[in-house]
Amino acid sequence: MTDFFSGIDKVRYAGPDSDAELAFRWYDPERVVMGKRLEEHLRFAVAYWHSFAWPGGDPFGGQTFERPWFADDMKAAKLKADVAFELFEILDAPFFCFHDADVRPEGATFAESRRNLEEIVDYFAGKMESSKTKLLWGTANLFSHRRWMAGAATNPDPDVFAYAAATVKSCMDATHKLGGQNYVLWGGREGYETLLNTDLGRESEQAGRFLSMVVEYKHKIGFPGTILIEPKPQEPTKHQYDYDVATVYGFLKRFGLENEVKVNIEQGHAILAGHSFEHEIALAASLGIFGSIDMNRNDYQSGWDTDQFPNNHSEVALAYYEILRAGGFTTGGTNFDAKLRRQSLDPVDLVAAHVGGMDVCARGLIAAAAMLEDGGLERMRAERYAGWDRPDAKAMLTSDLASIAARVEAENLDPQPRSGRQERLENWVNRFV
Amino acid sequence: MTDFFSGIDKVRYAGPDSDAELAFRWYDPERVVMGKRLEEHLRFAVAYWHSFAWPGGDPFGGQTFERPWFADDMKAAKLKADVAFELFEILDAPFFCFHDADVRPEGATFAESRRNLEEIVDYFAGKMESSKTKLLWGTANLFSHRRWMAGAATNPDPDVFAYAAATVKSCMDATHKLGGQNYVLWGGREGYETLLNTDLGRESEQAGRFLSMVVEYKHKIGFPGTILIEPKPQEPTKHQYDYDVATVYGFLKRFGLENEVKVNIEQGHAILAGHSFEHEIALAASLGIFGSIDMNRNDYQSGWDTDQFPNNHSEVALAYYEILRAGGFTTGGTNFDAKLRRQSLDPVDLVAAHVGGMDVCARGLIAAAAMLEDGGLERMRAERYAGWDRPDAKAMLTSDLASIAARVEAENLDPQPRSGRQERLENWVNRFV
Amino acid sequence: MTDFFSGIDKVRYAGPDSDAELAFRWYDPERVVMGKRLEEHLRFAVAYWHSFAWPGGDPFGGQTFERPWFADDMKAAKLKADVAFELFEILDAPFFCFHDADVRPEGATFAESRRNLEEIVDYFAGKMESSKTKLLWGTANLFSHRRWMAGAATNPDPDVFAYAAATVKSCMDATHKLGGQNYVLWGGREGYETLLNTDLGRESEQAGRFLSMVVEYKHKIGFPGTILIEPKPQEPTKHQYDYDVATVYGFLKRFGLENEVKVNIEQGHAILAGHSFEHEIALAASLGIFGSIDMNRNDYQSGWDTDQFPNNHSEVALAYYEILRAGGFTTGGTNFDAKLRRQSLDPVDLVAAHVGGMDVCARGLIAAAAMLEDGGLERMRAERYAGWDRPDAKAMLTSDLASIAARVEAENLDPQPRSGRQERLENWVNRFV
Amino acid sequence: MTDFFSGIDKVRYAGPDSDAELAFRWYDPERVVMGKRLEEHLRFAVAYWHSFAWPGGDPFGGQTFERPWFADDMKAAKLKADVAFELFEILDAPFFCFHDADVRPEGATFAESRRNLEEIVDYFAGKMESSKTKLLWGTANLFSHRRWMAGAATNPDPDVFAYAAATVKSCMDATHKLGGQNYVLWGGREGYETLLNTDLGRESEQAGRFLSMVVEYKHKIGFPGTILIEPKPQEPTKHQYDYDVATVYGFLKRFGLENEVKVNIEQGHAILAGHSFEHEIALAASLGIFGSIDMNRNDYQSGWDTDQFPNNHSEVALAYYEILRAGGFTTGGTNFDAKLRRQSLDPVDLVAAHVGGMDVCARGLIAAAAMLEDGGLERMRAERYAGWDRPDAKAMLTSDLASIAARVEAENLDPQPRSGRQERLENWVNRFV
Ligand SMILES: [Co+2]
Ligand SMILES: [Co+2]
Ligand SMILES: [Co+2]
Ligand SMILES: [Co+2]
Ligand SMILES: [Co+2]
Ligand SMILES: [Co+2]
Ligand SMILES: [Co+2]
Ligand SMILES: [Co+2]
Repeated sequence: MTDFFSGIDKVRYAGPDSDAELAFRWYDPERVVMGKRLEEHLRFAVAYWHSFAWPGGDPFGGQTFERPWFADDMKAAKLKADVAFELFEILDAPFFCFHDADVRPEGATFAESRRNLEEIVDYFAGKMESSKTKLLWGTANLFSHRRWMAGAATNPDPDVFAYAAATVKSCMDATHKLGGQNYVLWGGREGYETLLNTDLGRESEQAGRFLSMVVEYKHKIGFPGTILIEPKPQEPTKHQYDYDVATVYGFLKRFGLENEVKVNIEQGHAILAGHSFEHEIALAASLGIFGSIDMNRNDYQSGWDTDQFPNNHSEVALAYYEILRAGGFTTGGTNFDAKLRRQSLDPVDLVAAHVGGMDVCARGLIAAAAMLEDGGLERMRAERYAGWDRPDAKAMLTSDLASIAARVEAENLDPQPRSGRQERLENWVNRFV
Repeated sequence: MTDFFSGIDKVRYAGPDSDAELAFRWYDPERVVMGKRLEEHLRFAVAYWHSFAWPGGDPFGGQTFERPWFADDMKAAKLKADVAFELFEILDAPFFCFHDADVRPEGATFAESRRNLEEIVDYFAGKMESSKTKLLWGTANLFSHRRWMAGAATNPDPDVFAYAAATVKSCMDATHKLGGQNYVLWGGREGYETLLNTDLGRESEQAGRFLSMVVEYKHKIGFPGTILIEPKPQEPTKHQYDYDVATVYGFLKRFGLENEVKVNIEQGHAILAGHSFEHEIALAASLGIFGSIDMNRNDYQSGWDTDQFPNNHSEVALAYYEILRAGGFTTGGTNFDAKLRRQSLDPVDLVAAHVGGMDVCARGLIAAAAMLEDGGLERMRAERYAGWDRPDAKAMLTSDLASIAARVEAENLDPQPRSGRQERLENWVNRFV
Repeated sequence: MTDFFSGIDKVRYAGPDSDAELAFRWYDPERVVMGKRLEEHLRFAVAYWHSFAWPGGDPFGGQTFERPWFADDMKAAKLKADVAFELFEILDAPFFCFHDADVRPEGATFAESRRNLEEIVDYFAGKMESSKTKLLWGTANLFSHRRWMAGAATNPDPDVFAYAAATVKSCMDATHKLGGQNYVLWGGREGYETLLNTDLGRESEQAGRFLSMVVEYKHKIGFPGTILIEPKPQEPTKHQYDYDVATVYGFLKRFGLENEVKVNIEQGHAILAGHSFEHEIALAASLGIFGSIDMNRNDYQSGWDTDQFPNNHSEVALAYYEILRAGGFTTGGTNFDAKLRRQSLDPVDLVAAHVGGMDVCARGLIAAAAMLEDGGLERMRAERYAGWDRPDAKAMLTSDLASIAARVEAENLDPQPRSGRQERLENWVNRFV
Repeated sequence: MTDFFSGIDKVRYAGPDSDAELAFRWYDPERVVMGKRLEEHLRFAVAYWHSFAWPGGDPFGGQTFERPWFADDMKAAKLKADVAFELFEILDAPFFCFHDADVRPEGATFAESRRNLEEIVDYFAGKMESSKTKLLWGTANLFSHRRWMAGAATNPDPDVFAYAAATVKSCMDATHKLGGQNYVLWGGREGYETLLNTDLGRESEQAGRFLSMVVEYKHKIGFPGTILIEPKPQEPTKHQYDYDVATVYGFLKRFGLENEVKVNIEQGHAILAGHSFEHEIALAASLGIFGSIDMNRNDYQSGWDTDQFPNNHSEVALAYYEILRAGGFTTGGTNFDAKLRRQSLDPVDLVAAHVGGMDVCARGLIAAAAMLEDGGLERMRAERYAGWDRPDAKAMLTSDLASIAARVEAENLDPQPRSGRQERLENWVNRFV
């Protein structure tokens, strides 16, 4: 036991009326809704990077956090792992997620970096023997080091592509060894700063081939998890290729990968791309590529990725409603790709942020389940499209313009609009949140 | 001759130093760049709707323009056509574009609306016999009438789908009859106001089938033009399905239409979707679906579609640079889907706005052609990717992660970043604009 | 009784568990919190314009609503008034608000418009004798008619200034006669489309003088209400002068009106200006100019003023928290400057939208009151600034840079940051909402 | 001479047709427009921080630049100064600007930091004896160190206020000693992350008193320069107090400082606040508080402060037009608060970026001067407001609502709108850019 969280006990469910600072008010892992325990529905994961590796900097200021493990050697890496697993224990977290760069010091060579990663993976594996916390997903950090500044798979330099390929292999190996349930690719540098120096066509061919290799390697090593792409429209680049769910879908179709790869949708990235979170989830579900979520909000009034813990259960309920409608998570889960505000210096802030986020999600999912079980929204949606269940309407879809036009004139069609009932539907939702 | 433009002569090229209010300073239709006359490069089109049908209203105010043809009968429609062709003549415009609702009064029934359209098409055809102005594209207004409020092809009511199909048929017939070079679909209501009442999957199936019918009808009637989708992310709806070029590409791939349909890209819509105009053009070109452009800017600081005439030749040059790199227009052209500001009440404003826009485009295209002929940008781009022309780099693309990783370690690769030279490239561009 | 709302009874409080479509679940007007009935706290007002005068149009489509009073004569105006007071009755609304243009037909001359207004004011006065519904505020529509297209008080044409002055006089007279508790000015056209034709200095002098005349007239007629400016940053203009609360404050200071005029803050306008609603309220309160609110949200992802009924009680709670901290409303209240979505065609939609909005506000205010009574947030806020209560800290504020610098060196000050506890504060709020 | 810029000669004016990479095409310092040399009009300044202290990091990646002076000691600080003055020489820059933190290593105590600053100031002073480059302004970095994370003057801890006061004193002393022409305050942390822990009223009192002390100290030491506030709406904070020019004006009025303090307006900050750059300049000029500019653009499509060198001369022309209309700079100038893109690794990139920026500004100013000398825009502006020059219009401004209303009815006023001529004005501008 380190003393980082000293004085902080395991957080337990205490009900909505508790006034303890560190108690779950809504997240009772054992509570069953729609036939499944909340823990199994929500599948919470702690993100290693923001919680343990981020120093609190922003574009105008440096480190604010002072953590005993902020050093660049294996000893510090192991101390960090000890503290991380202590947080998992405090939260009773079912999952965690990591990048290679979060968990091991960079080596002087690629081989040394890989060996460092392997040593930490063994250290994690040891800890996981006595921990309930599993690996939701692993991933490679292909954006922080200066070698990636002009892209990883889409770099103009083929040696960077090679370095990226080797890095991803090592991270897939690590994820596989630790029993990870998914492997994620976020292309933070796969985009451009200026179109003037960029060959879009070449870069997308590189990206397509890279992803194909990832899929091939998955099958080769028998990794049973899901390959996920995390879309984001911009930041750090001016323009990122995996802009949003629809863009990723087109990319997958182009390279024949739509049955091999799904998406990890982040609330903040959806917002940056001009969509609501629930839109991106519903769209991915309708296209058959919904995988997992990063449940961290952006401030609607900041034009960059603020990666805050969720704090509005009514919004969160709409997201879980779409997830439950789509059948819930399979290999995916609810990852908090969320960082403390840089002024939240204390260990208790780190715990409280997760507790608050988990509670907001639990409350949202409980409301979503109740809405789905109530059935009112789905009934009203079905009524709205009921006309399309008529045989003549279905037949029209296999018809042609000229025949339809003839019918419009013959029957003198003059369709009358009907109320979309938006406010009534919003009121309906408000009964449950 | 009507007297609407009385006192305004045909506008002629007078060179950059002219101080006439209504003269072309840059647009000399006969000037040859890159082996083609400017007129053939730019293929300007006047948009009927904004120029002749829009009354000057905005969300907080009503009509400001007082036009003698603002009435809802065939006589007014013909007067409007007379004035429109007078503007085409004043500008020596090679093309125009229209929606059905711009040119004919709505009838009491669909059949009457169709007959009204046919009568006007005949009237146009008569005028076009003695005019140089051709039809760049026709389209159907499936968004203004209340029947479309919840969508056209994606409406929950199959009768609205039918009405839309009949309408598009009539507009394709009109376009075909007038020798139109393209047919455009903009799905202004194909989207939603709230996800709560919307079935995304159902609606996209409807949209896919509708577009397939359009393509089938094109082949049936032997329409030689190109079918174009015009993407836009939102407004009037909260969320529109044809969000941007990447989204449309995914949609076309999904329904197997990527070789049948191209895109008409509007600058303002690109901006609303979070992209630069040149990005959308370059992306469409790289995906093989570039068709045509709507060259009207949005105010960067207004969050809605302001549809203003272009006024910054440096920006416009970057767009034409991508068009010229992609080989220039084939059936497409430069449409001004631009409206006067609602305070620009005078006939001379309408002429001056087009003259200014055409000049900005001509100046931009001339600069773009000079940049391309100079070759500097393309040389620097090629240098940046030169590593990928090495045989071992090409071979890597058919290799696999494990082999590449082995090589990274064996050769102890440590790729070093090279300058992206963005500011130097921007300076380069500034030599030409 | 008209039959517009036939079948719809007076809406009553039925508690959170009611499943009636038209019942208050949270708004129990008689419930006392912090020593005052909810009705007196919230002071709800129905807005005449959106609810009775807006036809459902948007920038790409025309009228969707079909109301029996959509005609331009006094008979229709009276039918509209009848229906409006029926809605007030159904909702048991304590207040309403109106513009001149909402309630009377435009006359052929100014004098006729004024007389029409006076006739309707008398009609209203008659109705108000037997109604509980009072006038929260009146205002003049100085933006819809084409005469205002280039501004009212800030118009380049002094005759428009005169017309605006006469209009405001007539509306102040009407408001006074009906016992209105405030008079509002929203400068929808007081701004510009292009700086190229605008003289900022001249226009702001005009605006300052105009507002001074309004204040002078208020005193002259003995109007006891509050004069309110409603800030908005843009739309319909590209740039509006009364941008936000801070801008209005500077304007008032410049013309010596900061003790005469307060602000009416709209949630949607706060958002468009880049602020949170609660920021604008807290700022106005700290500057002594808080007056009233327009409680209608904007869609965070639409770049224009969507004027929707509120639907997120957690957000609303933060706004009422600032209002309660500032002592609550005096002459101000909670106006719904909110319009139905244009697809919400049915009379029941209009009722349901208000019921839902009132419930969201009531729930938010109840939570806000509980937070304030709990005292936790204020205690933590006070703790954070406690250092400033030290005498030496207070003394420092009357000191000078050199003395302070000497002390910093003498005492070798090295202040250490303390946690801002943001996540813990957000969790605290979530106990109450 | 260091060898950092080896091989790069002093940059000279070579005219628009030069194809040298490093030549001025538009910036001929000796060219006289409107009676003044371009150098005297533009008053270019190089910013020390971005050009010499920024390591190339962004929120997702670390250092990309490798500079020999990246170390934290006085030796490195002097090497940095040597290179900086070499750049000034290469560019023949008339001015530079700096923060304390850019030029000296942070000491272990405040006193040591101050002494380090004094040592560097002496080093600068020595260099300036043989350099033409003067100090445009100095400033204090009150945002990077973790002590400022919750504000400087507005910090909840009075010791931080004290530390800030001492720091500003030392920077004002340094600026005074080096003959600086202005002293700037940018409140990067004077704002908040969450309103929940913030006392707006208290913090603004602190800020007002702090600024008053700065003004008092200026007078005490006889600093002849101008005190400038640089507004910015957000980033790094969620909300910054000095939001924009209008907000700063209100703040100055509140504390009686409107004749003592002016504004330094940054293009990128104007954009983030929802204004055009020229708006902010024109507004400041009309309020009598225009001081200086930071001429660095933001990418319109990135929601954060990208601080790029300007590259669009047409836009820049509109800004200089407002500056020239207001009489040009007095103590202010054109500072490039602009950073290289983080991929622009080479010394030549740093030079080229400045050369390009200076050329864009020179070209813009030349166009602006030509527009002003042409007089067309001002003539059209004056025509638009000509009615206000009528005696009866002037008289109306000292009249009252009731008298004006009586006249409106008596004269049956019915003012008719006139064209705002926006497109014609934009065309006019395009003759000159
Ligand atoms: Co993120
Ligand atoms: Co994420
Ligand atoms: Co548009
Ligand atoms: Co368009
Ligand atoms: Co509004
Ligand atoms: Co309002
Ligand atoms: Co900046
Ligand atoms: Co700046």
